Amino acid sequence: MDKPILVFQTDFTYKEGAVSSMYGVVKCVDRCLEIFDGTHEIPHFDTWSASYRLYQSMQFWPKGTIFVSVVDPGVGTSRKACVAKTKDGYYVVTPDNGTLSHVKYHIGIEEVREIDEKVNRLQSTLGTSVFHGRDLFAYCAARLAGGVITYEQVGPSYLVDEIKVHRIMDGKVTGNRAEGIIEMDDPNFGNLWSNIRSELLLNNGFSYGDQVRVTILHNGEQVYQETVLFAKSFGFVKPGEAVLYTNELMRASMALCLGDFKKKYQLGFGEAWTISLDKV
Amino acid sequence: MDKPILVFQTDFTYKEGAVSSMYGVVKCVDRCLEIFDGTHEIPHFDTWSASYRLYQSMQFWPKGTIFVSVVDPGVGTSRKACVAKTKDGYYVVTPDNGTLSHVKYHIGIEEVREIDEKVNRLQSTLGTSVFHGRDLFAYCAARLAGGVITYEQVGPSYLVDEIKVHRIMDGKVTGNRAEGIIEMDDPNFGNLWSNIRSELLLNNGFSYGDQVRVTILHNGEQVYQETVLFAKSFGFVKPGEAVLYTNELMRASMALCLGDFKKKYQLGFGEAWTISLDKV
Amino acid sequence: MDKPILVFQTDFTYKEGAVSSMYGVVKCVDRCLEIFDGTHEIPHFDTWSASYRLYQSMQFWPKGTIFVSVVDPGVGTSRKACVAKTKDGYYVVTPDNGTLSHVKYHIGIEEVREIDEKVNRLQSTLGTSVFHGRDLFAYCAARLAGGVITYEQVGPSYLVDEIKVHRIMDGKVTGNRAEGIIEMDDPNFGNLWSNIRSELLLNNGFSYGDQVRVTILHNGEQVYQETVLFAKSFGFVKPGEAVLYTNELMRASMALCLGDFKKKYQLGFGEAWTISLDKV
Repeated sequence: MDKPILVFQTDFTYKEGAVSSMYGVVKCVDRCLEIFDGTHEIPHFDTWSASYRLYQSMQFWPKGTIFVSVVDPGVGTSRKACVAKTKDGYYVVTPDNGTLSHVKYHIGIEEVREIDEKVNRLQSTLGTSVFHGRDLFAYCAARLAGGVITYEQVGPSYLVDEIKVHRIMDGKVTGNRAEGIIEMDDPNFGNLWSNIRSELLLNNGFSYGDQVRVTILHNGEQVYQETVLFAKSFGFVKPGEAVLYTNELMRASMALCLGDFKKKYQLGFGEAWTISLDKV
Repeated sequence: MDKPILVFQTDFTYKEGAVSSMYGVVKCVDRCLEIFDGTHEIPHFDTWSASYRLYQSMQFWPKGTIFVSVVDPGVGTSRKACVAKTKDGYYVVTPDNGTLSHVKYHIGIEEVREIDEKVNRLQSTLGTSVFHGRDLFAYCAARLAGGVITYEQVGPSYLVDEIKVHRIMDGKVTGNRAEGIIEMDDPNFGNLWSNIRSELLLNNGFSYGDQVRVTILHNGEQVYQETVLFAKSFGFVKPGEAVLYTNELMRASMALCLGDFKKKYQLGFGEAWTISLDKV
Repeated sequence: MDKPILVFQTDFTYKEGAVSSMYGVVKCVDRCLEIFDGTHEIPHFDTWSASYRLYQSMQFWPKGTIFVSVVDPGVGTSRKACVAKTKDGYYVVTPDNGTLSHVKYHIGIEEVREIDEKVNRLQSTLGTSVFHGRDLFAYCAARLAGGVITYEQVGPSYLVDEIKVHRIMDGKVTGNRAEGIIEMDDPNFGNLWSNIRSELLLNNGFSYGDQVRVTILHNGEQVYQETVLFAKSFGFVKPGEAVLYTNELMRASMALCLGDFKKKYQLGFGEAWTISLDKV
């Protein structure tokens, strides 16, 4: 049977040799292992984004895939380093710092183990404490993927309830109104993704083709309000016009046709950014 | 025999999980498939650049390689999704939106088929219409590469003449003057590539070592004129000086030695940017 | 036995088709070869950075790995194209332009050979002289990795002493003072790495937990001075505070906790940037 694939995500970028060093460590453990870039452009130190990106892509990879996530502002301090096993059969190797939030909420964690640094840390680099991506996470993940260690040999298990998490919420629909937060951006095209499932809208009287009044607040203050078309894709409105659409994770989302919604209106994401949708 | 390699190009960047999700879909179809990044930094919605980048790199890959190009401003609307087979034995999986222009013009398309979404689309994500890169193009390409479907099973063929194309032209030489357009940039080093074949220059009295007057117009208005050396490479002029050279695709091109020609003179590419070369 | 891995680093970025073309050439030589990105974002024409990045990552890859480095401002001129064999068993395929400096100084070059363009250059692209990354370095490296040629068949050997190098130095400790240069940056997080080995500090009376006065000069003029904590990692100081720490290559380095030290103080790297550490 094929060995599990390793998918890495970090806030390291590809500007220098850090990613290369991590991948080299993997290949030294086991030449057969396949490695893929998730993304190396997570905003610095942003464990919320790390958490979301894991959730966004995980389900599209083969079961058993091992994700290595290194957004690690607390590297070298007392934060736990762990390997979580999800309820649907994936593994995540990560600092326990909020990165597991969305996967825990939406998919569930079956078991979590703290990495035993005595056996699962590269020994040749003990003089440094700032690159656990290379020395601990990549190394341990490669050992697990290559079958050098079993999951149990990662280290001692601890309570799933002790995993450090951000607060995750789902959007809600009441009558003709849906409410939620802007949970994430598409930093490339400038689309904004809410936590309101489109299915919930469609089951509660909203339909593609409807006009919907979209209101966005930042810390309670209105920063955007417009009545826009709810459509299946961007091309149903004119270039430059805003559209409410169903994004790749089936959430109600906002975009400009051939434009950048986030940039135009200077918006962001996170708990402070709330969105409401009113059927007109 | 080895299965075909998949080479992806998009305007998605690697900033978030989109590319990772596409590659995961490929690996779910067939773990054996090899995937390479062409580039994920094509300018947003720019099907001209997508077309050129395909043409630029294709010939350097093994015959049979399957290119997946997703610059798709019309995603989820009525534009066709297709797989083209080139006359020299490559495949391109792409929206039919101009992306095939250069390959069709310079190499030729032997056959083109519209992707049958009923069989060659990921069924688990039918609720969204905005990520055909993942749900349609990557999935269909993986099925073709993995031998799950034959080329004929992609979907019904249609006339090659119906493929949507941009107007492609070759530069010309008359007497001591060559004329063409700036067809593409090197966005990294700031070089500008014309559509004038250097072979044409060399066969018509131009020689390396000549001084050549280079004139660039934008919408008919002169934006650059200088007499520069025609040389084999950048290092034949002084740092900061402009040079006319033969680029990697054997076209007459402009650069600054150790500088950025495009940025210094604020130039661009496309049909509106014409260039002429006069032997002095 | 597995064929050697190829690791590429360039200043090409991934914005267009250059990297893809190089990798295609490799796959045309031998479909079995594994290719990894080192980084493609080395600053333009910066052979010092190219040299450092090689040194930074090389040791973490399996012995025998072949590195291809293409930062090549002199492409198409008389600079040598070579393949160096390191004393610890790696290969580097590169223009001989200073890129081998750190590896030669810290690891040692056992042998160096000039690439024979008559046999180890792609013949189909003889009309261009500006893309040796594709036509010469990738092609020759693939032939070597694939076993098409032996190392001796790369071309004639020349004296290791003739390799073009930048001046490399190690930092020194005298009494309570260490002196060196800022040798490299982490362009992502904005950390600055000196050439002073932390081991040297620790063996000469400096200890983690000490307060150290850090002074940075640029061309002899003081541009930074502060007394900071010498700690094992960033999290031992408050957010925004500077810290002296041991980096991933065991050198004394400067960072801001959750910030960008280089940007805040507008600092750089290279021989002109000297640093001294005084035990308080």
